[in-house]
Amino acid sequence: MGSQKEEVKLLSFVCSPVCRRVEWGLRLKGVDYEYIEEDIFNKSNLLLQLNPLHKKVPVLVHANKPIAESLVILEYVDETWNHQYPLLPQHPYERALTRFWIKFADEKVMYGGYVAMISSGDEQEKKVNEVREGMEKLEELIKGKRFFGGDKVGFLDIALGWITYLLPVWEEVGCMKILEAEKCPAISAWVNNILSHPVFKDCLPPKEELLAYNHRRRKHFNPALYN
Amino acid sequence: MGSQKEEVKLLSFVCSPVCRRVEWGLRLKGVDYEYIEEDIFNKSNLLLQLNPLHKKVPVLVHANKPIAESLVILEYVDETWNHQYPLLPQHPYERALTRFWIKFADEKVMYGGYVAMISSGDEQEKKVNEVREGMEKLEELIKGKRFFGGDKVGFLDIALGWITYLLPVWEEVGCMKILEAEKCPAISAWVNNILSHPVFKDCLPPKEELLAYNHRRRKHFNPALYN
Repeated sequence: MGSQKEEVKLLSFVCSPVCRRVEWGLRLKGVDYEYIEEDIFNKSNLLLQLNPLHKKVPVLVHANKPIAESLVILEYVDETWNHQYPLLPQHPYERALTRFWIKFADEKVMYGGYVAMISSGDEQEKKVNEVREGMEKLEELIKGKRFFGGDKVGFLDIALGWITYLLPVWEEVGCMKILEAEKCPAISAWVNNILSHPVFKDCLPPKEELLAYNHRRRKHFNPALYN
Repeated sequence: MGSQKEEVKLLSFVCSPVCRRVEWGLRLKGVDYEYIEEDIFNKSNLLLQLNPLHKKVPVLVHANKPIAESLVILEYVDETWNHQYPLLPQHPYERALTRFWIKFADEKVMYGGYVAMISSGDEQEKKVNEVREGMEKLEELIKGKRFFGGDKVGFLDIALGWITYLLPVWEEVGCMKILEAEKCPAISAWVNNILSHPVFKDCLPPKEELLAYNHRRRKHFNPALYN
């Protein structure tokens, strides 16, 4: 159990979907934290000192001890404030399924979606199709449920939460369509459920910033598209 | 807690380092299991049915329920047989560090080492240097300890165990040197500690099979080297 006296700080970047996860997890738990915005193009000494191996956000600092990697942080948060709003299910098999699907969604849908956004032409089309296939697997998983966690949001909802606000930005920036409401009606309904949940809707980045940052990314990898 | 009546099966492939992890975990826990060798070049209907998303080993089946992904399986095993030889540390911060280092080692050292093995020329040299850097980070981590888990082997020792028997094979197949005893004396000592541990030394694949399989992989990606 964490003591109220033990300070919690989060080094974060407003446009990072993996940082957003940590904020949602802390807010669902009702853990107070200090938010420290990091300039990822001009990294602070604090970040380099707290995460020397990867030099990446998010970093959670709790009682002066740093932890990196969003999913590692979320498991830590869940274990430390374990009596406040459990994020993972309680049964080992349900926990295993949750971890399995997070890994699948990160590799196939999130990473794939990002690559699709910065790509173009045949490469993009191929990637979009792969990501749609992944999305349809998630559709099967949530069919008949309000949230991936069941009646309440849980770890998987947090991990997939980027789909609700960032995927539309990636689709706009990449001139592509990944989430098709007619093929994924349950995911589409879930998007609305998440976006009307108080913890999620009060902790979303400004769309203009997301658009600007992701155009910058796409331009970096594909400058010819911006000439 | 798992009941003794609940059957445990492991679909595995002898040359896979991630399958080996699961076997070590089960043996450390003293969990009886049925070992089912899978022909990964001609996958069984059983595998396709149990892991339709990835069609990959390892798959653990416990009480007729399948679980895939080696690290997900190991967390499940640790949570299910939780009174028998804990694999993860007990404190959330130590658990977080363990998960952090496993992710680092998998991405930087294991995946990097495999890519180095199937590469050649400048690409290989670059990759070897990256992997050596990663290895030196692990050297700092284990300095002064018998195992990554401290006095006893733990989750991290299982996750890194491939270094003890498979890395020498990759080095031989790839005509490269990654683990240098003079730069990494603590890792080198740890290799001997693991290879003399009863659970590990009694559960290693035959070296000839590993050599044949990994030559096959290198040839697949780099056929010109075998002309």
